Amino acid sequence: MATPIRIGIVGVGLIGGSLALALRRAGLRTTAPGAVRSTIIGIDLHRASLLQARRANAIDLGFHPDQAPFASCDLVVLCTPTPALLESLPGIASSMQPGALLTDVCGVKELPCALGAAQRRVVFVGAHPMAGTEQRGFSAARADLFDGACVALCTPAGIAQGNGAWESAATAAVRALWMEAGATRFLELGPSEHDEAVAYASHLPALTAAALFEALEGAGAIEPAARALAAGGFRDTTRLAADGTVGQAAVHNRFIPAAARALSEALRNLAEASAQGQRTRDLRPLARRLELLADRRRAMPLPARKP
Amino acid sequence: MATPIRIGIVGVGLIGGSLALALRRAGLRTTAPGAVRSTIIGIDLHRASLLQARRANAIDLGFHPDQAPFASCDLVVLCTPTPALLESLPGIASSMQPGALLTDVCGVKELPCALGAAQRRVVFVGAHPMAGTEQRGFSAARADLFDGACVALCTPAGIAQGNGAWESAATAAVRALWMEAGATRFLELGPSEHDEAVAYASHLPALTAAALFEALEGAGAIEPAARALAAGGFRDTTRLAADGTVGQAAVHNRFIPAAARALSEALRNLAEASAQGQRTRDLRPLARRLELLADRRRAMPLPARKP
Repeated sequence: MATPIRIGIVGVGLIGGSLALALRRAGLRTTAPGAVRSTIIGIDLHRASLLQARRANAIDLGFHPDQAPFASCDLVVLCTPTPALLESLPGIASSMQPGALLTDVCGVKELPCALGAAQRRVVFVGAHPMAGTEQRGFSAARADLFDGACVALCTPAGIAQGNGAWESAATAAVRALWMEAGATRFLELGPSEHDEAVAYASHLPALTAAALFEALEGAGAIEPAARALAAGGFRDTTRLAADGTVGQAAVHNRFIPAAARALSEALRNLAEASAQGQRTRDLRPLARRLELLADRRRAMPLPARKP
Repeated sequence: MATPIRIGIVGVGLIGGSLALALRRAGLRTTAPGAVRSTIIGIDLHRASLLQARRANAIDLGFHPDQAPFASCDLVVLCTPTPALLESLPGIASSMQPGALLTDVCGVKELPCALGAAQRRVVFVGAHPMAGTEQRGFSAARADLFDGACVALCTPAGIAQGNGAWESAATAAVRALWMEAGATRFLELGPSEHDEAVAYASHLPALTAAALFEALEGAGAIEPAARALAAGGFRDTTRLAADGTVGQAAVHNRFIPAAARALSEALRNLAEASAQGQRTRDLRPLARRLELLADRRRAMPLPARKP
């Protein structure tokens, strides 16, 4: 951001806290003479989280949502879990200065963008940074969480809607925010397009991870042995099941039921292919298919794991 | 191992290569005066892998399977992928000294243990070290791969079968081998019990990871956006899909069809719960279930990721 601004971050947990730390890190890098750093205002229901964030120098000021000075913020970023975010969005928009910028990090985009479009006071830019860990709360926040991440940006909604120049400026401002926070890739797309794509990239994996964990829990007499033998493969495949926030977003995704039904069908087909191969003692076609799939998966570019 | 022995390792890829490196590392730690280190014989179809393993000082000698001196080995460890391992087991057993010890690392245990029981020349102890990565070949081998790992050990089969003392000694020898290689936990169980437990701990996750990757590939017009948005969650959830060797074992697992059918049903139920929650605008019960599941998953002890 060229000009120092007042940024409100609602929810200073893993995502909001990491955003605050990342913006602060960017501010410390500013060497321009006379540069004034932006003011970061943390807003959270939990006083303990605000204190933690203050102590870590991630935020300048901390407020309970009921006392938050939304009217004094140039930009507000909603970083609470999906249900709270959807519930608070209209009220926060109505507390802000007309024409100010409101954005979010919600894992679904149809619902918040519809709420953003339903008000005509602020500019709402739905965003979704593709980064996270299964940890929670400000204590899990890290300044490098978004380094190299891709951020999905939806078409501005609300007061700027239909004004091309204003829309572009709003998108540019949110993009600049996330570039300051470390993101390097951006994908502009509509809310529906986002939700359908993220169903495959994140939400279906999260719900499937949950189902896999429940399968182990429901393994009956064999469960203790299954737990003892569970190692890195089980750890990684079910990691997203430990991240309740992705699951929260996933169940709100309109494209999830169809995608989950299709995956259910695919798993049934795999079960039949395996059963038939075992009966006929010819598992080569299935093994070959998995080999080729493994090659394609290894060739897929994906962000490296952060240490 | 108290006494230096000749160990044949068939297949010096990720698992066999790592075992060789780990045993060599253990040998280097031996400080007893006059200690003579064990001889490690690598056996592989690929000359290049043997050369690599020799150069890394993981093995003392390298042989093509057709020329391998199985008769001179005290202990042979089968480390090839499932189909090759099953095919070669009887022939290798018949080439060894009567009473010698044959073991394996196969991800299923019913099939190799049945082959081990069908011969009466050597003692066969089916084993399965719970460690791996999605990388392949000797170049991916690492001496610390098995550090802290759990190893499943099946009841000895073949010539020791029914002789309690001999069975115990055989199990102890294989356990000692893996302790030298860094493993710290052992689970003795029958082949069927192993295969059912590992279906939940590893094989169902691997096949599900493959199905999730195929779902993204089949996402049609939205696939490019889904690929762009795929990040750490997709990377981890589908990591096992990149490991073709787990998939190979998985399709040979007799318990996989039933487990995959049950998971397919669970996913269909999740799809319906999500669809109904979206219709009735009450996703709280499903969200709550995922929250509680996330808590349980976070509380589950699992091996830490190696750097």
